[in-house]
Amino acid sequence: MKNRINFNEVVTRDGFQNESLFIPTDKKIELINQLSHCGFSKIEVTSFTSPKAIPMLADATEVMQGIQRVEGVEYTVLIPNLKGAQRAMQVNPDELNLVMSTSQSHNFSNMRMSMQSSFASLAEVIHFVNQKIAINVSLSTAFGCPMEGYVDPRVVIDLITQFSDLGVGRLTICDTTGMANPEQVAQMAQLVTNLFPNIAFTFHFHNTRGMGLANLMAAIQNGITQFDGSLGGLGGCPYAPGATGNICSEDAIYMTQLMGHETGIDIIKLLESAKLLENMVGRTLPGQIVKAGTIDCLHPVLGNVQELMSS
Amino acid sequence: MKNRINFNEVVTRDGFQNESLFIPTDKKIELINQLSHCGFSKIEVTSFTSPKAIPMLADATEVMQGIQRVEGVEYTVLIPNLKGAQRAMQVNPDELNLVMSTSQSHNFSNMRMSMQSSFASLAEVIHFVNQKIAINVSLSTAFGCPMEGYVDPRVVIDLITQFSDLGVGRLTICDTTGMANPEQVAQMAQLVTNLFPNIAFTFHFHNTRGMGLANLMAAIQNGITQFDGSLGGLGGCPYAPGATGNICSEDAIYMTQLMGHETGIDIIKLLESAKLLENMVGRTLPGQIVKAGTIDCLHPVLGNVQELMSS
Repeated sequence: MKNRINFNEVVTRDGFQNESLFIPTDKKIELINQLSHCGFSKIEVTSFTSPKAIPMLADATEVMQGIQRVEGVEYTVLIPNLKGAQRAMQVNPDELNLVMSTSQSHNFSNMRMSMQSSFASLAEVIHFVNQKIAINVSLSTAFGCPMEGYVDPRVVIDLITQFSDLGVGRLTICDTTGMANPEQVAQMAQLVTNLFPNIAFTFHFHNTRGMGLANLMAAIQNGITQFDGSLGGLGGCPYAPGATGNICSEDAIYMTQLMGHETGIDIIKLLESAKLLENMVGRTLPGQIVKAGTIDCLHPVLGNVQELMSS
Repeated sequence: MKNRINFNEVVTRDGFQNESLFIPTDKKIELINQLSHCGFSKIEVTSFTSPKAIPMLADATEVMQGIQRVEGVEYTVLIPNLKGAQRAMQVNPDELNLVMSTSQSHNFSNMRMSMQSSFASLAEVIHFVNQKIAINVSLSTAFGCPMEGYVDPRVVIDLITQFSDLGVGRLTICDTTGMANPEQVAQMAQLVTNLFPNIAFTFHFHNTRGMGLANLMAAIQNGITQFDGSLGGLGGCPYAPGATGNICSEDAIYMTQLMGHETGIDIIKLLESAKLLENMVGRTLPGQIVKAGTIDCLHPVLGNVQELMSS
């Protein structure tokens, strides 16, 4: 019996965050409402960051209030600090997703502070929330930092330990700029599941160097059962113009299903959402299944070939 | 100790075949000469098909005569029938690559004849060549046919057996339109290596549905050590407009190297060839590493972040 694999759809947060043209609030709500009926275990709806820093997600409150929640789907929101948590708590998310990097220079670039300060700031959020709501912590650059290169897995393990000591039971291990390879992913998966059997891990991959789905497969083979994905592969990498961003949800999910894993996701509905998204952003996205169709979309045998075959 | 993995570069045959604008003979030769110094075990130079059917490769003889061969690299050419073999033998290739499909409708579409007729025609070539030159047989649609869908692995096994009985020691198992998934690839790899321990198998993947590198990884995990790839991911799928074609050589090779396998390939030289190719065809190709760089191409910490870090 193969593991059930769950997916967390992050397109309206991680994907939209990289778009240059503002996507209207009602369009965001429309897409999330469609995604809610696809079978995701979780949807990362938006981010309660400073509207100045990320104008695209300035409508976080309106979006959270506007969507129709579906039972069985957790609606999570990204939180950078206490102020964000306080704003988010007013709209009753199912989970807060806190984030910090596992390398100093990436943390400084993204959070404008040291990893120590970030940890203290997130600890403050965790105490403030006081278990009234589930908390997930996302550890960025866990497989490599675009400025520093190699990230020692011990740094990742230390941070997991510290958050675990604060009562955090959910962590996401992020390959933020697509530096991981399947061998490294397999080792990380073994390491964290062995050391922290009671923590629910999500792995978050980017396809920046084309290895996203191979990394997903390596993680599945080594016991990881929850993954982030972005519809259509929407997103990008600030360090690699033209390269793709997050792994494409529908491609990742379809592969997982073909490999015999239950995902609970309706791939046909999901492909409709991917088409809606392409219309929304007005361009072709990196997702492949939306172009090629599922493998059971067969092509007709052409007339002249039929003649040949029957002659 | 991990298996050494060898790659066969097919861009100037499988990739160019899908291009609409003719690529001049001297440009083809220039690219092949560059690729010869990258460390490939084999290069599929061109195809001796009817110049009417594939005008792009009408200069097969001139290309084979114009390239500078490098020791350690096998130069192979695609052959559809006896006439092609006779033309090819005049330019002394290291290998003839014969091809037929494992599904009737795809074979009729591509070869204008039944699988039985194709087999008879290829058997004729094999007898004609009479072991004077190595022969590889490529079996198309072995993981699924775009018209018929499921292809029974027994059909593939039967064809391997028949070719093996004719003395063929090299076969390529092709996922011609990207219908394979990693589970299926793992099973096929186990099946063929167990049943035919003395045959040298190459696996040929397309990235039509985004699973190309995951399929490569599944094949490696199950004992396959030789793969086809196309520089830049050049190529496409006639059944899926907009979808990608063959797996991208440099992305596939780089992943294989990061996983700890010796490939003998100089990835930096290969990336230079990928850039030459992009200039040649005048557009951006699907390859990711050429956009994102290798993981050791680190980015500078920006001035304002440096200030923050030192304050």
